[in-house]
Amino acid sequence: MTRQKLADFLDTPQVRFGIIGVIIFNAILLGMETSPTLMNAAGPLILLLDRICLSIFVIEIALKLIAHRLNFFRSGWNNFDFVIVGIALIPAGQGLSVLRALRILRVLRVISVAPRLRRVVEGFVTALPGMGSVFLLMAIIFYIGAVMATKLFGASFPEWFGTLGRSLYSLFQIMTLESWSMGIVRPVLEVYQYAWVFFVPFIMMTTFAVVNLLVGLIVNSMQDAHAEESNAATDAYRDEVLARLEMIEKHLQERDGERQRTGSD
Amino acid sequence: MTRQKLADFLDTPQVRFGIIGVIIFNAILLGMETSPTLMNAAGPLILLLDRICLSIFVIEIALKLIAHRLNFFRSGWNNFDFVIVGIALIPAGQGLSVLRALRILRVLRVISVAPRLRRVVEGFVTALPGMGSVFLLMAIIFYIGAVMATKLFGASFPEWFGTLGRSLYSLFQIMTLESWSMGIVRPVLEVYQYAWVFFVPFIMMTTFAVVNLLVGLIVNSMQDAHAEESNAATDAYRDEVLARLEMIEKHLQERDGERQRTGSD
Amino acid sequence: MTRQKLADFLDTPQVRFGIIGVIIFNAILLGMETSPTLMNAAGPLILLLDRICLSIFVIEIALKLIAHRLNFFRSGWNNFDFVIVGIALIPAGQGLSVLRALRILRVLRVISVAPRLRRVVEGFVTALPGMGSVFLLMAIIFYIGAVMATKLFGASFPEWFGTLGRSLYSLFQIMTLESWSMGIVRPVLEVYQYAWVFFVPFIMMTTFAVVNLLVGLIVNSMQDAHAEESNAATDAYRDEVLARLEMIEKHLQERDGERQRTGSD
Amino acid sequence: MTRQKLADFLDTPQVRFGIIGVIIFNAILLGMETSPTLMNAAGPLILLLDRICLSIFVIEIALKLIAHRLNFFRSGWNNFDFVIVGIALIPAGQGLSVLRALRILRVLRVISVAPRLRRVVEGFVTALPGMGSVFLLMAIIFYIGAVMATKLFGASFPEWFGTLGRSLYSLFQIMTLESWSMGIVRPVLEVYQYAWVFFVPFIMMTTFAVVNLLVGLIVNSMQDAHAEESNAATDAYRDEVLARLEMIEKHLQERDGERQRTGSD
Repeated sequence: MTRQKLADFLDTPQVRFGIIGVIIFNAILLGMETSPTLMNAAGPLILLLDRICLSIFVIEIALKLIAHRLNFFRSGWNNFDFVIVGIALIPAGQGLSVLRALRILRVLRVISVAPRLRRVVEGFVTALPGMGSVFLLMAIIFYIGAVMATKLFGASFPEWFGTLGRSLYSLFQIMTLESWSMGIVRPVLEVYQYAWVFFVPFIMMTTFAVVNLLVGLIVNSMQDAHAEESNAATDAYRDEVLARLEMIEKHLQERDGERQRTGSD
Repeated sequence: MTRQKLADFLDTPQVRFGIIGVIIFNAILLGMETSPTLMNAAGPLILLLDRICLSIFVIEIALKLIAHRLNFFRSGWNNFDFVIVGIALIPAGQGLSVLRALRILRVLRVISVAPRLRRVVEGFVTALPGMGSVFLLMAIIFYIGAVMATKLFGASFPEWFGTLGRSLYSLFQIMTLESWSMGIVRPVLEVYQYAWVFFVPFIMMTTFAVVNLLVGLIVNSMQDAHAEESNAATDAYRDEVLARLEMIEKHLQERDGERQRTGSD
Repeated sequence: MTRQKLADFLDTPQVRFGIIGVIIFNAILLGMETSPTLMNAAGPLILLLDRICLSIFVIEIALKLIAHRLNFFRSGWNNFDFVIVGIALIPAGQGLSVLRALRILRVLRVISVAPRLRRVVEGFVTALPGMGSVFLLMAIIFYIGAVMATKLFGASFPEWFGTLGRSLYSLFQIMTLESWSMGIVRPVLEVYQYAWVFFVPFIMMTTFAVVNLLVGLIVNSMQDAHAEESNAATDAYRDEVLARLEMIEKHLQERDGERQRTGSD
Repeated sequence: MTRQKLADFLDTPQVRFGIIGVIIFNAILLGMETSPTLMNAAGPLILLLDRICLSIFVIEIALKLIAHRLNFFRSGWNNFDFVIVGIALIPAGQGLSVLRALRILRVLRVISVAPRLRRVVEGFVTALPGMGSVFLLMAIIFYIGAVMATKLFGASFPEWFGTLGRSLYSLFQIMTLESWSMGIVRPVLEVYQYAWVFFVPFIMMTTFAVVNLLVGLIVNSMQDAHAEESNAATDAYRDEVLARLEMIEKHLQERDGERQRTGSD
């Protein structure tokens, strides 16, 4: 019973807005940490406040764990919060500046707390599986492209196509059309005259695949929106037509019955 | 009464077209001011004509203020005109070349005067709130990205990621895909081998968010257009079907009534 | 009468395909003219064949003029052909290499002859007026942007923003996102620290306007397609429902008439 | 009979998943071949395993040929597999490193084996003919543009516009907006002051054509999706309305028949 009360308390708007406030305050603190002047002036204070914010998050999650026990981990968003706060608790050694940089990910908690942002992200995530096949196809094209580019151009351009990883990165850059010609393909063309036979179709295919992802996304969103919208007005009308038709039929049948009785008189 | 007449007069097509004419003439003058040759040849004349145009705007707005009094400020477009003309009246000191450059904003008045342009801008503005959540999400991604980039790469690349502001600008550039690889990420990769783990997902996420903005915009416009269009033909048809069904029912009920009377005879 | 026959003859598929053949042959010839080796080997022959092609076009248009007289100029496509062939007849002096380059525009005649290409171009052209307001708005934004950029940055960067024309070109480049940051804005930022206040909103506004053009185009095409498609099946269904309802009503009214006669018996 | 059994056997999920496994294993092997370290350590083993994979593919296709005889070549996907495996069998001489690089195309077989990927590719391919006219139009614009650019700028910029082929490549780069201004048009403008009259409209036209391809693709997909979706619910409703209306009419006609009989009594 008290666990239920605790769960309800953690779900009240007051607690939620409080947490959002702490997140925003913490975001500002983490932004201030990037400024050497501010850190020189008030470094210890900023770090202290940051610790307090973190403590509040840890307490909130601990209370949620107490309230929901293992059900806590059934919600994807709870896991998300758990991991993000967990990252901040890992003691960052001197070398691990990356871990310290990852602390800012705490700000992402604002998404799990604010329902509107949550819905947007959920919308993004639900759109992903429908694009799975096209993503897989693009992965295949990229892998084939990378193996070919490494074999063909790796020897002469080790910086761009020396290994499979470098080729994948360079092909990603080419797909985004960034400096693909002046930066990469024109130098390659000077050594391998027919390299455009590889690169131009690669650009066309990947761009076409990206366009198809976009088209699929639009069509899906449209269908969802369409389904919702049309049901409102159309269903009401259809129900009325069917109801009236049924009434007319019933009328006619009743009179058929009457007549038969009259006829049998 | 005379205030009403003045308001009506300011709304006549003649006055409107006159104002549009003055705006276009003023736009040409302000364009001519950018040419040193023209300014040497006829500088004082151009500046004089510019002053006359400005005076006409001031008089128009003053008359509108007299006609509508404080209701004037209820319309967003009136406030827009007021601010734009107001900027031109601020005495630009020697240092404030920016204020003098802002005078050209007066040309924007053509939007508030021409109804078709007004509607386009209103269409843009009404589309914005629907995209609010995605914008907020992008702001969060940008803030997190900027803090991380400053912490991770700021020391080695102060020009691009030295401060939070510079990181935000560089990330905006990266989102637009301009020189993201050859210009920024490849140099960074030479120092931090795994920097692509930060930049490639950043590009994918922001591009995906931008695409979602676009998809949302398309779906919204489509729904609006769809709602308008289908109502015209469909509603007429539906009304007719329902009217006819009602008539048939009435028919049947009347005859039921007749028969009952005949039956009771 | 013979004029009608001539018009019919010029419209036969044989003549049309013959003209398309001549256009394609001429296109190949004009392509060959760009190769110095081919011109050295067979220059006079290529030029002779080119002249023959041109003569055929001139004869075709002359015959069309005889057949249709001044009605010839009522069709936009005829005017298009007339101008394109006319360009090739202007005697190109030594200096006017531009006019000689424009001869290749003759290949565009294939569009006016092939009905499918014609329809695509007509589709493009009919889409333009609907985008007129947004184009006008973009023109205003560009003009204002160019005047401001010239006044603010013209003195320090005469190559990019020295005159109104240069500013317009540079802003067009910035709108296409080509080297906007590394190439233009970063150098400007080094002199004018706050230049991003001008450029970043400019990019956002113009990109947003372009996106709106795209959205408008999609919505329009969709509506056209939707209107065509739905009418086929839906109209047939609706006609049948209305016809049947009418028949039922007629039935009921007839019997009402009968009964009244029976009643009056 | 045994041929039918063989065909059925080759179509069982077990065989299919086995083949997919071999393809993925082969893809990994071909990726490993790009790494000199791995090739030094276990080169002969990798090449041996690669040969085994290839043998499995050859056997599979041979069995399919036995099972289906010449009907094998009726399916586009079978031809696709046949060509891809055939490429790997061509003895690659020392000079033909290209042929060796093409071996990775074998990985594409995963598309013909996995039904979901197959459907995506079929979707892409069926979308192409509808875009044929626009593609043809773009080809014409590119050809005209390349001839003009070669004639106008070829002499001064042989690297970019020296031959028809180079011009086509450069115009493709310009269409993708990659370094079009800073890289190509600005240098050209320094020699030919009015070159923007050629390039800016070229960019606008090709971008507009690409946008129209995209719009066409979206509209087509939407129509397909719309047709499928609406038929489900709407058809059921329409059938019911028509069935009920027919029943009512039949009712009325029957009673008309009855009455006539009663009347004739």
